[in-house]
Amino acid sequence: MKLEAYLDEFNARDWEPDTEPEDGPLRMAVIGLGGFALNRALPAIKQTTQCETTVVVSGSSEKTEMVATQFEADHTLDYEEFHAGKATDAYDAVYIATPPAFHLEYAKTAAEYGKHVLCEKPMEATVERAERMVRVCEEAGVTLMIAYRLQTEPAVRRLRELIQDGFIGEPVYLHGQFSSKILDNDRTDDVWRVDPDVAGGGALMDLGVYPLNTSRFLLGTDPVAVQARTATPHEEFNGVDEHVSFQLSFPDEVTGSFTASFNAHRDSRLQVVGTEGRVLIESAFGAMVNRDNVIERGDMHTEFTGPYVNEVVEEFEYFATKVLTETSPEPDGSHGLTDLEVMTEAYESAETGSWVTLR
Amino acid sequence: MKLEAYLDEFNARDWEPDTEPEDGPLRMAVIGLGGFALNRALPAIKQTTQCETTVVVSGSSEKTEMVATQFEADHTLDYEEFHAGKATDAYDAVYIATPPAFHLEYAKTAAEYGKHVLCEKPMEATVERAERMVRVCEEAGVTLMIAYRLQTEPAVRRLRELIQDGFIGEPVYLHGQFSSKILDNDRTDDVWRVDPDVAGGGALMDLGVYPLNTSRFLLGTDPVAVQARTATPHEEFNGVDEHVSFQLSFPDEVTGSFTASFNAHRDSRLQVVGTEGRVLIESAFGAMVNRDNVIERGDMHTEFTGPYVNEVVEEFEYFATKVLTETSPEPDGSHGLTDLEVMTEAYESAETGSWVTLR
Repeated sequence: MKLEAYLDEFNARDWEPDTEPEDGPLRMAVIGLGGFALNRALPAIKQTTQCETTVVVSGSSEKTEMVATQFEADHTLDYEEFHAGKATDAYDAVYIATPPAFHLEYAKTAAEYGKHVLCEKPMEATVERAERMVRVCEEAGVTLMIAYRLQTEPAVRRLRELIQDGFIGEPVYLHGQFSSKILDNDRTDDVWRVDPDVAGGGALMDLGVYPLNTSRFLLGTDPVAVQARTATPHEEFNGVDEHVSFQLSFPDEVTGSFTASFNAHRDSRLQVVGTEGRVLIESAFGAMVNRDNVIERGDMHTEFTGPYVNEVVEEFEYFATKVLTETSPEPDGSHGLTDLEVMTEAYESAETGSWVTLR
Repeated sequence: MKLEAYLDEFNARDWEPDTEPEDGPLRMAVIGLGGFALNRALPAIKQTTQCETTVVVSGSSEKTEMVATQFEADHTLDYEEFHAGKATDAYDAVYIATPPAFHLEYAKTAAEYGKHVLCEKPMEATVERAERMVRVCEEAGVTLMIAYRLQTEPAVRRLRELIQDGFIGEPVYLHGQFSSKILDNDRTDDVWRVDPDVAGGGALMDLGVYPLNTSRFLLGTDPVAVQARTATPHEEFNGVDEHVSFQLSFPDEVTGSFTASFNAHRDSRLQVVGTEGRVLIESAFGAMVNRDNVIERGDMHTEFTGPYVNEVVEEFEYFATKVLTETSPEPDGSHGLTDLEVMTEAYESAETGSWVTLR
């Protein structure tokens, strides 16, 4: 097993076809102009070769106009206009960046007009609505991808190869944490995160989904049981889980122990320990940081930091490539649905104090 | 809160009295000559000022003679001679380093002869036997200390001060791991670790007790509930827990997520995350290593490594000081008993798949 080979081609887009797709770039309608769309997604789309923003959609016409000018989009729509089918000739796909409970309605309209869908995670607020999203996209024959950007992060992809090639032996356990003080800033657009009807939950849905999904991706398997404990000591969190610690049991008795918090000092880390070695990503889930990696096997210890890669650019290139080449993205609707099922059962477990077996 | 003050007096023995105890050194009988006693405890006692080894006790007279010569002990005893009261004039206290299920019998004999007891962890194989140990030592009026050497490790003591002074805000969660491939060496004297009757359990009892006890020490509170999942995929582990992941709930909804393994790549780490900061000890539980620490608070990030301190020397000095000054050690019998109760309920939880509330 050659570690060098992994490192030398660290940033390889292993998912890229040999020849560039012919029908690009993919024209995107960006729906919902919150912090992530403005600061990360729109600038990233501008950097891709396979995507371009042609339409922006939001509830505030002033904001929509400003953003359209900044990112050179030809069309601005409010939500009613979007649903009514205005400017459908101007885009091929939508990127849905609204709070979770609104994802289905935009995905549904997009599918009706034959548009492909890239939808932020968690894919909806409930399993039932996520299932409907999968169904409407399937029936319309459009691509549905859930925006797990870590899956296109080179550090994460390389570690997945190492793990699945047996570099650390049989995986034994994972530990992961993702925390942030989400209410300690001046942004008012984060308030939906503590509205259970809109967000579908609290720290688990918004932050816990990162270690959950990345673990599934790294191991290449889905959990068979889940257990969780939630706590909301502070009123301003509105009854959603301010803190959550949850454990997953994967096939072959691999365990994952994870914590997420809306009200703890920043912490972002994912480690996989196997019988022969371990891999660790520091700042695993944080945005716009280099990811420091530790790889150990036997007595060998390596620390390295790959070149900075904007994984949001990678994600949009990946989505566009999949759509343009008519191939299925790995994190499709049913993949996203699994996370929602696991998190729903995690909340069930937090109520009962017992492990829940997943189907 | 001044971080400098902590760092400047990093190695301070805050438990040491102003004047040296008068009746020292404390004369020790070392019982059980396995790897830890030979390689760590006996050399450490030699480095202390308050302890000396005057008696060695084991089942092999050849080994006992050799060790007595090497460490300048005046008396060698087999187990029968020890129980019969031979050489009781030559020692004031015993250090019990046999496998757990034999701890009670030596503690009992020691207490009968009025000798103080320093007993390795876990203190016994069952709660019932641990309770009996506490009782016999209490009735005899001798000191009983459980050998949680991390509690005398300067890095751990300084982090406890930081945490309990509020440096990281309110503690929110802990993560800890301790793993080692215990059967991957040529030592035959580790075989008892996979004998449930002698060890009382597997990875949880032998390794999990480290993050469990150190968390209690750092937080200054005891868990109120426990949940665990065990796995024994490989036959050579004889049915004891080869891997365990367990979660603790502490007062104020602080959670601890821990994993221990007898058959995973080495891993040793403990982190406490609070509302305002975090502290981390790398190589938290390993032997004879410098402990690298990370301390964060707000935007401040510090990494430091204190000078190497042999925590086994610290532990014996601490024990002798407590006995000679007639004060109680912090990790006393009832403190050790709590760990055994928690671990017993953790095994219960692993059977039922539910959280167990601790009394």
